[in-house]
Amino acid sequence: MEKNRRYILADRPVGMPDETHLKLEEVEIPEPGPNEVLLKTRYLSLDPYMRGRMNDTASYATPLQLGDVMTGEAVSEVVTSNQPDLKPGDLVMGRTGWQTYSVTTPENLTRIDPSLAPPSAWLGVIGMPGFTAYVGLLEFGKPKAGETVVVSAASGAVGQVVGQIAKMKGCRVVGVAGAEDKCRHVVDQYGFDACVNYKDEDFPEQLKAACPDGIDVYFENVGGKVFDAVMTLVNNFARIPVCGRIAHYNQTSLPEGPDRLIPFMGQILIKRLMFRGFIQSDHSELLPAFRQDMAQWLRDGTVSYQEDVVEGIENALTAFQGLLQGRNRGKLVVKVS
Amino acid sequence: MEKNRRYILADRPVGMPDETHLKLEEVEIPEPGPNEVLLKTRYLSLDPYMRGRMNDTASYATPLQLGDVMTGEAVSEVVTSNQPDLKPGDLVMGRTGWQTYSVTTPENLTRIDPSLAPPSAWLGVIGMPGFTAYVGLLEFGKPKAGETVVVSAASGAVGQVVGQIAKMKGCRVVGVAGAEDKCRHVVDQYGFDACVNYKDEDFPEQLKAACPDGIDVYFENVGGKVFDAVMTLVNNFARIPVCGRIAHYNQTSLPEGPDRLIPFMGQILIKRLMFRGFIQSDHSELLPAFRQDMAQWLRDGTVSYQEDVVEGIENALTAFQGLLQGRNRGKLVVKVS
Repeated sequence: MEKNRRYILADRPVGMPDETHLKLEEVEIPEPGPNEVLLKTRYLSLDPYMRGRMNDTASYATPLQLGDVMTGEAVSEVVTSNQPDLKPGDLVMGRTGWQTYSVTTPENLTRIDPSLAPPSAWLGVIGMPGFTAYVGLLEFGKPKAGETVVVSAASGAVGQVVGQIAKMKGCRVVGVAGAEDKCRHVVDQYGFDACVNYKDEDFPEQLKAACPDGIDVYFENVGGKVFDAVMTLVNNFARIPVCGRIAHYNQTSLPEGPDRLIPFMGQILIKRLMFRGFIQSDHSELLPAFRQDMAQWLRDGTVSYQEDVVEGIENALTAFQGLLQGRNRGKLVVKVS
Repeated sequence: MEKNRRYILADRPVGMPDETHLKLEEVEIPEPGPNEVLLKTRYLSLDPYMRGRMNDTASYATPLQLGDVMTGEAVSEVVTSNQPDLKPGDLVMGRTGWQTYSVTTPENLTRIDPSLAPPSAWLGVIGMPGFTAYVGLLEFGKPKAGETVVVSAASGAVGQVVGQIAKMKGCRVVGVAGAEDKCRHVVDQYGFDACVNYKDEDFPEQLKAACPDGIDVYFENVGGKVFDAVMTLVNNFARIPVCGRIAHYNQTSLPEGPDRLIPFMGQILIKRLMFRGFIQSDHSELLPAFRQDMAQWLRDGTVSYQEDVVEGIENALTAFQGLLQGRNRGKLVVKVS
């Protein structure tokens, strides 16, 4: 008889998570109670923020408890419904976790419209990562025509959308990625003006050459040496939406000094820089406009996207490790059923 | 015969500037050419930003060259005018430098209206420092009623105005200053809800006690340990207008590690903080509204102010050293004539 296969947080990782931290187990498929639905997971989203959920430190979300199912968005199909608005076969999206079956109530779910975009895209370009790009770039980056926008993790789920929206706004768009093929992809596929590989030894010089007029908007996804190189090139009045810092998610100790926070604050003042950390979920009032815009952009071909689809929930952990190491190509999703 | 007495930048200071860096010299009073006016300085403003002008590093203003008259705003009286719009006896304000006489053209001057505020106040509460407070707090701090606003250098020219505007907005206002009498003054005179002395050993605990609901806006004037203590108390979505960092202006080397820039960026992300460096001169479109608001606030007593008036240009350097050490009480001006 079929079981529910799920990953639970068995231990908190220090550094890279592995199978001692995320354990795949099999349990009975849960029974939906009154007003609940039983869902079968079709696609599970894997996103960098999930690494933070494994820690026991204060963040914008409550940390997972040991023994909890690993958190994650998924697109699922309704199997059984004790609720009039959803019926078997309906496709929904929700934070149902790393598992093959789940039980929840309708208020935790969003019905998806496969006529606007295919099911998996609701976890990517027209889902949370796409919305993250839209909010961060338009609300906080505020790019103006002719400005230079730099996007780190440029070929990732968020970066690819940031760059394409910035191109629509008439900006020079420069990506930063960690592989030649990723760089080629964002230039050829999404129309970025340039893309620089941060693993190249002369990366700072390459970035400088790609940004002859300096940098007006830096969409921060990674931190580390990319951030350092960008900071030497930012123009007066540059805006830096801070979306993620993947280079630091597995970091286990602080780097040695000197303490660069002091000159950093000096640079904020002298160059009149704007930094703003943000999380898309604080901006749900913009979600309807985003869905409408993105559906249109997908229809008319202004935005395209790349997905990296891994088959089978048993490969989710390895795929997630790869995500933290930049081994994915585009938005990483697990095809679960 | 009377001479022009002026301070020139003779050498670039490392650390605290002294008389080897700023030399007082006497030269002939200059003759105004066509369309120029000869001015006699009445009040010279001394402000922390001037320390930065002595360095040879890129900043928002071109650094002074060795031999230049030290830069500074002053209120002056027209002595001779070769220009129809200004006549002897008119009072004007301009960046005429640390000297007793100057020659300039009208486009570098603003006529002041002594019916709105006394001449020296045009260097303080209704001048550049007051405008700095207005722009930074209202444009970037965006305080909302019920929020907690913390102001460093609270009794200084900018801080005293920040606190009083924040009170008008219905905020809890907590000052930070470096002396008991400064703290008492901002509470008794300007209606701050509390003020904490950063020189007290238990300053971080005192600040925490004064901010029971955390900090929503921090108006940054100083850096150093005040900034560090504030950062442990900022709420989600806090806004930090970065106006000055006086604790670091004479700093000659970077503090040792660890490198706190990394966790700092993490905090920006997790708490969705907004940092924005700013200079009032980028926002001159707001100047008319400011002058109108401030004149009204002074008339109706909503805003009061404290000036620290030093007599004689020969005391300007000592007074400026005191300013960098927090020895002034309120807005520091030199009464020149």
